[in-house]
Amino acid sequence: MIYLDNSATTKPDTQVLQSFQQVSERFFANPSSIHQLGGEAEKLLQRSKEQAAQLMRVRPDELVFTAGGTEGNNLAIKGISLEHRKRGGHIITTQVEHPSVYEAFNSLEQLGFTVTYLPVDETGVVSVDELQKAITDDTILISVIHVNNEIGSIQPVEQIGEIAKQHPKLFFHVDHVQGMGKVPLDLGDSGIDLCTISGHKLHGLKGTGILYVREGTTLFPLFHGGGQEQSRRSGTENLAGVVSMVKALRLMKERETAGIRHMSELQTLIRQKLSAMDGIFINTPEQAAPHIMNISVPGLKPEVLIHILGEQGIYISTKSACSSKQTDESKILAACGHSGERSTSALRISLSYDTTKTEIDTFLRELEKAIKQLKAVLE
Amino acid sequence: MIYLDNSATTKPDTQVLQSFQQVSERFFANPSSIHQLGGEAEKLLQRSKEQAAQLMRVRPDELVFTAGGTEGNNLAIKGISLEHRKRGGHIITTQVEHPSVYEAFNSLEQLGFTVTYLPVDETGVVSVDELQKAITDDTILISVIHVNNEIGSIQPVEQIGEIAKQHPKLFFHVDHVQGMGKVPLDLGDSGIDLCTISGHKLHGLKGTGILYVREGTTLFPLFHGGGQEQSRRSGTENLAGVVSMVKALRLMKERETAGIRHMSELQTLIRQKLSAMDGIFINTPEQAAPHIMNISVPGLKPEVLIHILGEQGIYISTKSACSSKQTDESKILAACGHSGERSTSALRISLSYDTTKTEIDTFLRELEKAIKQLKAVLE
Repeated sequence: MIYLDNSATTKPDTQVLQSFQQVSERFFANPSSIHQLGGEAEKLLQRSKEQAAQLMRVRPDELVFTAGGTEGNNLAIKGISLEHRKRGGHIITTQVEHPSVYEAFNSLEQLGFTVTYLPVDETGVVSVDELQKAITDDTILISVIHVNNEIGSIQPVEQIGEIAKQHPKLFFHVDHVQGMGKVPLDLGDSGIDLCTISGHKLHGLKGTGILYVREGTTLFPLFHGGGQEQSRRSGTENLAGVVSMVKALRLMKERETAGIRHMSELQTLIRQKLSAMDGIFINTPEQAAPHIMNISVPGLKPEVLIHILGEQGIYISTKSACSSKQTDESKILAACGHSGERSTSALRISLSYDTTKTEIDTFLRELEKAIKQLKAVLE
Repeated sequence: MIYLDNSATTKPDTQVLQSFQQVSERFFANPSSIHQLGGEAEKLLQRSKEQAAQLMRVRPDELVFTAGGTEGNNLAIKGISLEHRKRGGHIITTQVEHPSVYEAFNSLEQLGFTVTYLPVDETGVVSVDELQKAITDDTILISVIHVNNEIGSIQPVEQIGEIAKQHPKLFFHVDHVQGMGKVPLDLGDSGIDLCTISGHKLHGLKGTGILYVREGTTLFPLFHGGGQEQSRRSGTENLAGVVSMVKALRLMKERETAGIRHMSELQTLIRQKLSAMDGIFINTPEQAAPHIMNISVPGLKPEVLIHILGEQGIYISTKSACSSKQTDESKILAACGHSGERSTSALRISLSYDTTKTEIDTFLRELEKAIKQLKAVLE
């Protein structure tokens, strides 16, 4: 199997799965129970949080364990908007967000908020000047994706963070789901108040994630209840999920520098080869995250190409998994100003640290073959 | 180990954990990816939902897989209230709900809703007449716990369902987290529109659950995004969690009738022995779920008794795990009209199908010993 759909999800690491299994068996008690078994579970939870905080270079109580990226994004966006609604009703995001961000913003429009959706240039990048101009006295939230999930564009979140710092009334959220382990981001003095990451994009398990919430930032919780996670996310803690998530994060961090360099090399190779092929448009800009390569092959249905490659055991995708069943057109490519033909014929190849050059060579050969085969049929 | 804290959480079944492991390894693709691996994952998801629906005797599209009971309760309560807020702003619940219900109601008060918290009698049961009287033209939601998590009282949810049917404008939600597998509930023609269950109370894994949503019932989602779970709960599906949850449900259903009878017998035994002991008050009413026995030992600190028993490898709890760290007094026992002394000295013993008579004999012997020992110290 040549799995090149790592932006949709990654294969769980064996060690991560083992951690999950061991904790589920040995530390099954409810961390809120006051007996000794509960106490042991609670200690392990606290230790895991400290380890995650160390890896992310933040404070333990700034982390909220969630069930994934969609929860993290919704908790950040709705949590800030509902909690601080009396201070202002204007919120800002971009036209190239993941559905869990832009649909969350849409839903807040239904609840009376006013949303600015910032446009992007042809590389999928937002203008910092336009963002600055969009801020009003009524603005309480800016949410920007760090690395775009379809084409890999990197937003200038560090610069936006500097702007956010000048507006202490507003909060700045970064969707870092595709960025973690691919494009380093230092939260320290960044001006970022909230930051979402997801376990299953890091060879962790589905149903796990972390929302970073800067100290002093208050949220309206999505889950009220027993007061777990300092009342920001009630519900019995998924301790096995937490420990496995932190293990995934640690394993990733250990390989991060080498992994990023390795993926960049493969990405360059793919770009060179595909640029030389007829009828292929490269949608991923030169300055992009190292793990994503988005291309269009106008005239060919992407699902047919994906199917042909799948029969060879090679797996790539169209657009993002989270919006792949909705409409044919990529909203992201349309926002970059690409034609309908190009926006409806996109393919996404996404790498992991473990992707090999041999796999990429095979993929490129089979892709070329599949395109020729399909074009021959259509001619 | 004699584990008698099954209402806080249960030990995951080995088969359930194996399912989780196998699915995580073999079906790791994103069910939304359109390649063949994604297709296989999606088929497994659909099959799991069909199986769960069959076990619960509902339709597959009436089930939403969640990350647990707290999410289910919050999604039901906030989802109905926000979606139908233009039809009315009055919502009803009881004074003996799990924190994930009453805190969700409290949070809606902050958003402008008016809440009626119905009182209960000394057995912890709400009056159907009073509930009926509380309904106004403005009422859009009634939420009632089926089996109380601290004392095991059973609410007349079938009768409340009949009342709800006469008010087509309002929705009826049942928190069935402690009821599932203990007190059967037929959803069919029940008048129940939403019903929450949790995986980890059924020897399933933490981070898994189901919210039943009757056909035609619309919700404001907590998680907006990629449109998974028919847009009622977006986010990459935790397929391994789903399959493991459905396995836990199936294993439970296979043993349900015998399991309930077995727990009832043990409960009767506990009641007889403890009733005969000096200074113990039985808080669980005669008509109660079979797995919970709540007692008070006024004058002794429950955490001390729990600690002494824990040193013998016997694990029981105070109140519910979800509120055990907040205040000393049980809100539930206070709502039943018990004195402060009785409400602050409660212990909960909670059984599973696998609890044995030998375990109960040992527990009763050790409890008696611990009480005598403590009283001797205090005299």
